[in-house]
Amino acid sequence: MNSVDGSAITRRLARVRQFVADAAVDGLIVTHLPNIQYLTGFAGTAGALLVSPSKSRLIVDSRYVTAARALVSALPEGLVSIEPVVRSYDETIVETALREDGERIGIEAAHLTVARFNALSARLQLVPTERIVERVRMVKDASEVAIFREAARRLSAIARRLGEMAAAGLTEKEVAGRIEDAMRQGGFSRPAFDTIVASGPNSALPHASPTDRALQAGDPTVLDFGGVYSGYCVDLTRTVQLGGISGDMARLFAAVAEAQKAAIAAVRPGVRPSEVDGAARGVLERHGLGEAFGHGTGHGLGLEIHEEPRVGRPLAGLPDDPLVSGVVITVEPGAYVPGLGGVRIEDDVLVTSDGCEVLTDVPTFL
Amino acid sequence: MNSVDGSAITRRLARVRQFVADAAVDGLIVTHLPNIQYLTGFAGTAGALLVSPSKSRLIVDSRYVTAARALVSALPEGLVSIEPVVRSYDETIVETALREDGERIGIEAAHLTVARFNALSARLQLVPTERIVERVRMVKDASEVAIFREAARRLSAIARRLGEMAAAGLTEKEVAGRIEDAMRQGGFSRPAFDTIVASGPNSALPHASPTDRALQAGDPTVLDFGGVYSGYCVDLTRTVQLGGISGDMARLFAAVAEAQKAAIAAVRPGVRPSEVDGAARGVLERHGLGEAFGHGTGHGLGLEIHEEPRVGRPLAGLPDDPLVSGVVITVEPGAYVPGLGGVRIEDDVLVTSDGCEVLTDVPTFL
Repeated sequence: MNSVDGSAITRRLARVRQFVADAAVDGLIVTHLPNIQYLTGFAGTAGALLVSPSKSRLIVDSRYVTAARALVSALPEGLVSIEPVVRSYDETIVETALREDGERIGIEAAHLTVARFNALSARLQLVPTERIVERVRMVKDASEVAIFREAARRLSAIARRLGEMAAAGLTEKEVAGRIEDAMRQGGFSRPAFDTIVASGPNSALPHASPTDRALQAGDPTVLDFGGVYSGYCVDLTRTVQLGGISGDMARLFAAVAEAQKAAIAAVRPGVRPSEVDGAARGVLERHGLGEAFGHGTGHGLGLEIHEEPRVGRPLAGLPDDPLVSGVVITVEPGAYVPGLGGVRIEDDVLVTSDGCEVLTDVPTFL
Repeated sequence: MNSVDGSAITRRLARVRQFVADAAVDGLIVTHLPNIQYLTGFAGTAGALLVSPSKSRLIVDSRYVTAARALVSALPEGLVSIEPVVRSYDETIVETALREDGERIGIEAAHLTVARFNALSARLQLVPTERIVERVRMVKDASEVAIFREAARRLSAIARRLGEMAAAGLTEKEVAGRIEDAMRQGGFSRPAFDTIVASGPNSALPHASPTDRALQAGDPTVLDFGGVYSGYCVDLTRTVQLGGISGDMARLFAAVAEAQKAAIAAVRPGVRPSEVDGAARGVLERHGLGEAFGHGTGHGLGLEIHEEPRVGRPLAGLPDDPLVSGVVITVEPGAYVPGLGGVRIEDDVLVTSDGCEVLTDVPTFL
């Protein structure tokens, strides 16, 4: 268990309780584990949290009861209580809700499975809810911002050594191993996702897995990696060109760098994420690279490597709320041209009261 | 992408198609990523697979289209085709199903979320299905068994060095780092889960996260770790006692070792997983440790670290199908006594035609 900040947990639960009250339900069943971690500090591999307007109960199985009791005893008195699982999680959720809340209970529609919905529906009147905890999580508090600054500083120190780590003759897998070793030695508890090292022709695949291909002089190589630090994910990409750079590849590098700069310049409160995406996309389209940029410009960071907001083209039905101070996103446009190669450049950016702060600090070209 | 075995993929899809036909649906939407990987070899972070009685279509977004086309081109002609995402995954699923299959489509109820179910329901008649791909995955084929043997051999080589890696004076986090370094150097692509190093009083917590506590002489220390090798997860636990062992801890070690031996002896085709659990539980109950063993005896291993079968107490509504040759499970009873300490011992076991093969090979006491 990580240690928890009792006052932050108190504020987060109060905000969620307000949404629960607004949804006109007797309680909310939180089943998405990162949401449970955010609201209690509990970081187990199973659990459920029942939040009602007056109280919160963390349901855990026998593996976790002792640790969870110790965790909540460090929180303000009565903020979260522990309910040990009896027989199964779903039975315990139902019994706890009926005993203490009522039968009209919200569920997290984006996370609860159809099978569990059907099982719980036998005895509870379930109300699908969307983005209750996610909207609270999207805005980082002071303790989270402090963790992000430190995590980004540590990841940047590793990224500045990419030029030496991505040496000709090493395989993509070996370079990925070097990067992941450096993250562990740099204080990260684990990689935030499978490291991408995509060299030569593989660089034209936006999400290639490392292969046994050896890096060669003349290769563009996309290096995309991230780590988990104090529970939070940071994420960074640079593209290195082994040996000199010239011609079409030089133009590709310049266009992507220009697009990334334009997107970062667009980040401030009140701007929609789709406008940040549009800033990058507009630059690449002007360079005739609109088709070469098939993915979105970025994503939110936090306890999960991909969280709200989505930074991409506006799409009917998907949220595109204006940015507010405290949101942390990646800005990572790319261009991928089969037969030539690919370039992606990624930094992590905190929305501030009057603009943004680029948390990562690494030269664009290494 | 990992390379794929075309004949294995052909057999797996044929078995799934049989279940699809039995379910009287026009097709099955596979959304659980490990199931997609199992049926196509595609190992991206997003995707969907539509399996109908006559064909299979892998839906991927622009990041993966090139790699996915290369992947399926190595499969038998026409076995799997690629559908690029247009606008969104769910829209593309609907369009593809309506164009080629029909509107009555099975979904994976244990994986599809309520939100996606509701979105897809607007245009398709969805039929919840359970355990279609999981039942096929549970029985490993020859190529999977070969990977398991190699992965277990590599993990065992690391485990035999636990006595030196878990040295007094190192913190739990440092020991976890040593184990994870050894796994990387041993050819594992990543840890299969967060390594557990639980020393002294922490050993009485079955799922403790490593802390800054330094290991001390006299500590029992539970070390539970695993790695992913060629896509497959292996998992092993030993409990080491720093300095000599005596008295109540010696009795705890002996009881858990006896329980694990009894459970392994029970593994053979035709036996239910709950009977394997009962063999371990019966031994611990006879030693007065029934209450100290709060978790199940084990779980299936495969592309996921926890998959079918569940090896635990029989529980109404949960599957408990008799074991068959080719199933791989962990056998990991434990006993946890607050104020004294905890012991868990875990090996990986393959069900064979006439009994079982213990894949891991490490002395019980190190």
